[in-house]
Amino acid sequence: MSQLNSVTVQGVLASYAAGRLTPASFLAAQLEAARSDTTNSWLSLISDEQLAAYVDGLEGKSPDELPLFGVPFAIKDNIDLADLPTTAGCAEYSYQPEESAFVVAQLIHAGAVPLGKTNLDQFATGLVGTRSPWGAVHNSFDPNYVSGGSSSGSAVAVATGQVCFSLGTDTAGSGRVPAAFNNIIGMKASKGLLSCSGVVPACKSLDCVTLFAHTTADINLLLDIAGQYDVTDCYARADGGSEIYQTGQALSGKSIGVPKAAQLEFFGNQQTQALFQAALNQLSELGAELVEVDFEPFLNAAKLLYEGPWVAERYAAIQSFFEADSSRCLPVIETIIGGAQGKTAVDAFKATYQLQAYKVRCDEILAGVDAIVTPTAGSIYTIGAVNADPITLNSNLGYYTNFMNLLDYAAIAVPAGFQQTGLPFGITLFGQVWQDRKLLSMGGQLQQAFGLPLGATILPLPIHTEAEQSAAVEEMVELVVCG
Amino acid sequence: MSQLNSVTVQGVLASYAAGRLTPASFLAAQLEAARSDTTNSWLSLISDEQLAAYVDGLEGKSPDELPLFGVPFAIKDNIDLADLPTTAGCAEYSYQPEESAFVVAQLIHAGAVPLGKTNLDQFATGLVGTRSPWGAVHNSFDPNYVSGGSSSGSAVAVATGQVCFSLGTDTAGSGRVPAAFNNIIGMKASKGLLSCSGVVPACKSLDCVTLFAHTTADINLLLDIAGQYDVTDCYARADGGSEIYQTGQALSGKSIGVPKAAQLEFFGNQQTQALFQAALNQLSELGAELVEVDFEPFLNAAKLLYEGPWVAERYAAIQSFFEADSSRCLPVIETIIGGAQGKTAVDAFKATYQLQAYKVRCDEILAGVDAIVTPTAGSIYTIGAVNADPITLNSNLGYYTNFMNLLDYAAIAVPAGFQQTGLPFGITLFGQVWQDRKLLSMGGQLQQAFGLPLGATILPLPIHTEAEQSAAVEEMVELVVCG
Repeated sequence: MSQLNSVTVQGVLASYAAGRLTPASFLAAQLEAARSDTTNSWLSLISDEQLAAYVDGLEGKSPDELPLFGVPFAIKDNIDLADLPTTAGCAEYSYQPEESAFVVAQLIHAGAVPLGKTNLDQFATGLVGTRSPWGAVHNSFDPNYVSGGSSSGSAVAVATGQVCFSLGTDTAGSGRVPAAFNNIIGMKASKGLLSCSGVVPACKSLDCVTLFAHTTADINLLLDIAGQYDVTDCYARADGGSEIYQTGQALSGKSIGVPKAAQLEFFGNQQTQALFQAALNQLSELGAELVEVDFEPFLNAAKLLYEGPWVAERYAAIQSFFEADSSRCLPVIETIIGGAQGKTAVDAFKATYQLQAYKVRCDEILAGVDAIVTPTAGSIYTIGAVNADPITLNSNLGYYTNFMNLLDYAAIAVPAGFQQTGLPFGITLFGQVWQDRKLLSMGGQLQQAFGLPLGATILPLPIHTEAEQSAAVEEMVELVVCG
Repeated sequence: MSQLNSVTVQGVLASYAAGRLTPASFLAAQLEAARSDTTNSWLSLISDEQLAAYVDGLEGKSPDELPLFGVPFAIKDNIDLADLPTTAGCAEYSYQPEESAFVVAQLIHAGAVPLGKTNLDQFATGLVGTRSPWGAVHNSFDPNYVSGGSSSGSAVAVATGQVCFSLGTDTAGSGRVPAAFNNIIGMKASKGLLSCSGVVPACKSLDCVTLFAHTTADINLLLDIAGQYDVTDCYARADGGSEIYQTGQALSGKSIGVPKAAQLEFFGNQQTQALFQAALNQLSELGAELVEVDFEPFLNAAKLLYEGPWVAERYAAIQSFFEADSSRCLPVIETIIGGAQGKTAVDAFKATYQLQAYKVRCDEILAGVDAIVTPTAGSIYTIGAVNADPITLNSNLGYYTNFMNLLDYAAIAVPAGFQQTGLPFGITLFGQVWQDRKLLSMGGQLQQAFGLPLGATILPLPIHTEAEQSAAVEEMVELVVCG
């Protein structure tokens, strides 16, 4: 059975069901592997006693009752887990939460087992994965390269097969760039679908909890479980989507917007440019119609994020800590967050008007297509290069991601091949709020077509089950019957 | 025919259709009356030549072709009309617009004729109608009393029968308080339904253009005509409502929230308190079920408006004018708008979070009822009293109105009787965004039940036509057939 593996959620569930794995031995082995991690992905791991308590809790249950029965996962360390302290990437800021974040509690309730908390760009401020007092998280394909951030450890822990899925956060790309750099799926669902209760805010009005996993089928299952409306998160919204996940012919006949060639940026990297063209060709082959769109208003919106007043949200999030002694932050973070001090309320409102004007234009463009495709990041850098030029290269990595949360869009990052160096490249499909399942379906079909191995493992991508494709088949039958 | 009058939109249209009026003579008479106005409602009026051009434009047309054929209206002087300067209540700020505001253009295109621009609280900052360099607008029932603001002149011009309808704006109650104080309907429709293009902003993220008229039927017609989506207003939204206007049994079986007694404020006025109770009784008699609701989160949201950073929007709106020489504003306006200068972007975002948290709670309360009813204002004051204590009394007038735009709700102010002094009292029905027609229907049935005269005229309220009630009748028939 090709579906039996120990790195995907569905693979592990199938392995348990087939009696090939038991939670006690599998989870202990995974925890041991995490303790031997060489990528610098973890800031803390649960103890053997804490693991035993989770295993005890699974006693007498099965995957039939618990949809995430014994599935190991990782949690970015700006999201509360009652077992371990939350650091947000800053030891001096660290606190011991009384309870787990709403989303974490949903997952544990469904049987998932958190192995630990993962390294991140401090206070989730960065897209590089190098801005941590614990050191950079190494790329899962080449330790000299960045892992992407700020959810760096969460992405690498999945890519290396240490956990089946993980939680990240995303304010400007933090749930997508690390997915692209580690050959996994990263889903920034519609704002408010995954509760932010129990999450250290970055920009509270923009923050999303995000999911990393190996397959779109896994993400779809996780969204079902974790995406419960949380009345205690003032930015939570009940799922407004109506489509269901079905990958079969998801891209067939779909209109996919592509930025004009002159608006694409690969920062001199010809290989990523070629890989993006290959992804476009793949979309065409799958039946999508590619439509050139004007990317300018999206880029204009992106510029507002770091040039505008939203940095004041980062300041507001840690105000008392920052004002007491800002030198406890890494210098680059202190500089960025300190930049909020000159911003006035007048600046904030004026930028909001400007954003709203861009949004009208972007919405118009998006209304003309089913989704827009871009690279997730135009290029990738070594850790050394980022350390030498931390602001510019970080900014380059956000070229295709910074506008997303500001414009209230949903996005999925999908692996799309490898450079000759072996480093992965990824593309992003994005659409209007509540298009989550549609994006997931399209991303799923694309992933199946690429057929790349899982993350940084050598395991093959599981082929989609009949159930996942059946809706499309039924539709075809209906066409034949009615036609 | 009781429907024939010359103060309602539908009365004037019927009079034209019956040959009882002609645009040339009627509009000339109305313009002459406006020139003789004693309430201080107008800041400028069109010339005879300008009127002649409008009358020429109606030549050969009829009410069959133009739904507002020859209907005179007034425009608050923070909304552009190409014929006259826009002052926003400040001569030094005045400019000559090149074109009319989007909403004004829609109305003129439908045959309506603007007679002039009306007095207002300067820069639409106030609820009193006294904050104008041109002097206070006098209440249409007693010149010693305030007219309410900031859309003071627009409300009084309707109440006195000088025009059939008028445009106001509303950021915190400016389209509702003056309606209550002058015995007319004031509709603050859902934000974005009426375009704000060509309007001097107060708080751009909250501003609404509003309608004053004598009847809900007129408002319904005007919403149809003026409520076109305007892509050039970044806060415009296409109408998201699905209900239609039908007054027959609009209140029957509806659940109407009423704030707890201890949360109601009449500022010592026992007569308005009694009138509110009478309005509640009337709602019950019409079949509504009254449900006590907690008004605290609405009041908390209201406090944010003037205590919080939103005043920075008023500053942003006239920043260069204000910074060049703020003494060109009235002292009270200079003080209020100048208050923005200490507000930071951090303040702005923190207040936004607070508001969002209140909104979740308010939405929950509103989800339990069809609408909430409150007084529109708890009391009314003399011009002298307001001059003596301009801040406190202004603030009192916003007790039931300040939260509405912040929370993105729709509201209708409906006349609800008279104090023994002869001064009018009004109530407001409010509900979720896009409940405009439902609110209008309920307000319409209530207005019919009250049967008060029109504005400050002695004309009786026209009875609703069969068409307006037919949907309800059909529904009853259906019930009988199916039952």
